[in-house]
Amino acid sequence: MLALAAARLGFDVGVLTPEADSPASRVASFTLVAPYDDPQALAELARRCAVITFEFENVPAGVVQQLAALGAQVAPGALALATAQDRVAEKSFFEANGVPTVAFAEINTVKDIKRALERLSAPAVLKTRREGYDGKGQTWVKGVDDAAAAWDRIGRAPAILEARCPFVREVSVIAARGRDGQVADYALTENVHENGVLRRSIAPAPAADTVRAEADRIAATLLERLDYVGVMGIEMFELPDGTLLVNEIAPRVHNSGHWTLDACEVDQFEQHIRAVAGWRLGPTRMLAAVEMLNLLGDEADDWPALAADSSARIWLYGKRGAKPGRKMGHVNRLRPLK
Amino acid sequence: MLALAAARLGFDVGVLTPEADSPASRVASFTLVAPYDDPQALAELARRCAVITFEFENVPAGVVQQLAALGAQVAPGALALATAQDRVAEKSFFEANGVPTVAFAEINTVKDIKRALERLSAPAVLKTRREGYDGKGQTWVKGVDDAAAAWDRIGRAPAILEARCPFVREVSVIAARGRDGQVADYALTENVHENGVLRRSIAPAPAADTVRAEADRIAATLLERLDYVGVMGIEMFELPDGTLLVNEIAPRVHNSGHWTLDACEVDQFEQHIRAVAGWRLGPTRMLAAVEMLNLLGDEADDWPALAADSSARIWLYGKRGAKPGRKMGHVNRLRPLK
Repeated sequence: MLALAAARLGFDVGVLTPEADSPASRVASFTLVAPYDDPQALAELARRCAVITFEFENVPAGVVQQLAALGAQVAPGALALATAQDRVAEKSFFEANGVPTVAFAEINTVKDIKRALERLSAPAVLKTRREGYDGKGQTWVKGVDDAAAAWDRIGRAPAILEARCPFVREVSVIAARGRDGQVADYALTENVHENGVLRRSIAPAPAADTVRAEADRIAATLLERLDYVGVMGIEMFELPDGTLLVNEIAPRVHNSGHWTLDACEVDQFEQHIRAVAGWRLGPTRMLAAVEMLNLLGDEADDWPALAADSSARIWLYGKRGAKPGRKMGHVNRLRPLK
Repeated sequence: MLALAAARLGFDVGVLTPEADSPASRVASFTLVAPYDDPQALAELARRCAVITFEFENVPAGVVQQLAALGAQVAPGALALATAQDRVAEKSFFEANGVPTVAFAEINTVKDIKRALERLSAPAVLKTRREGYDGKGQTWVKGVDDAAAAWDRIGRAPAILEARCPFVREVSVIAARGRDGQVADYALTENVHENGVLRRSIAPAPAADTVRAEADRIAATLLERLDYVGVMGIEMFELPDGTLLVNEIAPRVHNSGHWTLDACEVDQFEQHIRAVAGWRLGPTRMLAAVEMLNLLGDEADDWPALAADSSARIWLYGKRGAKPGRKMGHVNRLRPLK
């Protein structure tokens, strides 16, 4: 979707991917199939591209540094990527910058878990510091007695323990920052997860003005403190009293912003391209209210029914293998703005 | 833009083009660079594609027949293409089907011009039957004395002479027909030409309900009588009393429908893909009013100014050579629907 947005703005797109026959390569001008950290591929990418970005936050942060060392212009930068890749660094960054988040502790041993439970109370959630997403690499610690087993369940990897958050719902803000420091937020979005995977997003989320304002304040703080360039997804928990706690940031276009593709004047993909290319950000104004539904696993095989449903704006990603729970596409349904 | 629309719906796109490094090839899964009538390329295209369409009405109609003979599913069909390629066949088709058009005569000699002027009056416009577009291959015949010179000016090619049309404005309808016979029209569009080339389109065109209804009647008639599948552009002249005369049809997505890209729930490119793929047509509902401005020749070099203008939704085609008057991109500017 980034490649499509770039193409319509007149850019030629090159893709570096370890995957042969990737969806992006089918809409790109050229493709380099190699590991993300392949020195030759990185050198070629740097030589051929005016600007480089990424759509996957597990690209090694060192790759961004290597590209920068080769003289390439890369956005977002290594700081945002490194921060988002390590849950302890991420939540420490939130705390240091006045961004509310859940209570947490760094975990390197079973003893750390037991000690942290005194402060955080059980049940608490234990997550690997790195590489977890969509509910992978995490487990609930039911009590002190469960500490050793939980440590085993996540593979004894460096971890974070987070206090249970009694949230009433999950919301997100998709925000962008340009090279000139300009910030633009999309409407607050309400998200519904199933089995740890995003199922539905509703925008604009019904919310008090104070909640919207706090979400925008949080977004602006994060983007500025990271000296961020591009689109960022910011996931938050809303507490019963309207307090927002940031759960995590994604230094990239975000699934909970896919509704912008059909409902906004400029969608998050074009916005990201505009930002990293050094263009002025576009308007995030909504032309319609919208609900996005993810197509998971073999649900995308129902495309004939979706094609027959004129209310469904369809996005199918062209991924070849439909594993259970894998995001294969999404559907946006519009309704008039109130 | 067709390839982009197809990609987001999950289709892989292959392109046959005589042009090396074409804009479409940069967003396609594979490209065959060969003349449109190259037998080997056509065989490969037929073998690899489930459905074939075209974006250029000067593809020889025989090519569509060859592909069909190879078992390929091609839409729109050879009848529509052949009709649109020959101005005499086209206007005869209009007359035979109750679609109002200007008075005209088939021209094969200077004598034909002189005889036709008795009925059509001077000045009248002489156009080659084939391959003219954007004002090319046509000339005004100022009177009987100018007949021989006019015949020379258009290269003594088989031609049509058309009566001068005292129109107040040019309008168009972008209409689609599915494989199931379903028809969907976009809002009536007002078009402003400069030097024979489309400069601006405004949608919805301010117009009386009777004018809109007649435009839709004309569109439905043409699509049905041609057993058409896909999107068609229908250019019309509006007379002072609101009468519409069809000037020409384009058996493809149409420049005067480029505004749909940013202002409609489903744009003309997705609509065309839906139609030729046998999907149900999508809603043509407008989410905003819009004005489209073509970027001609080196105007597209002003992209930094456009990038800085947040009201401009930018489409740059990635054509490598900016000849004067060549369509290099366009800009849509939205405003709220009244």
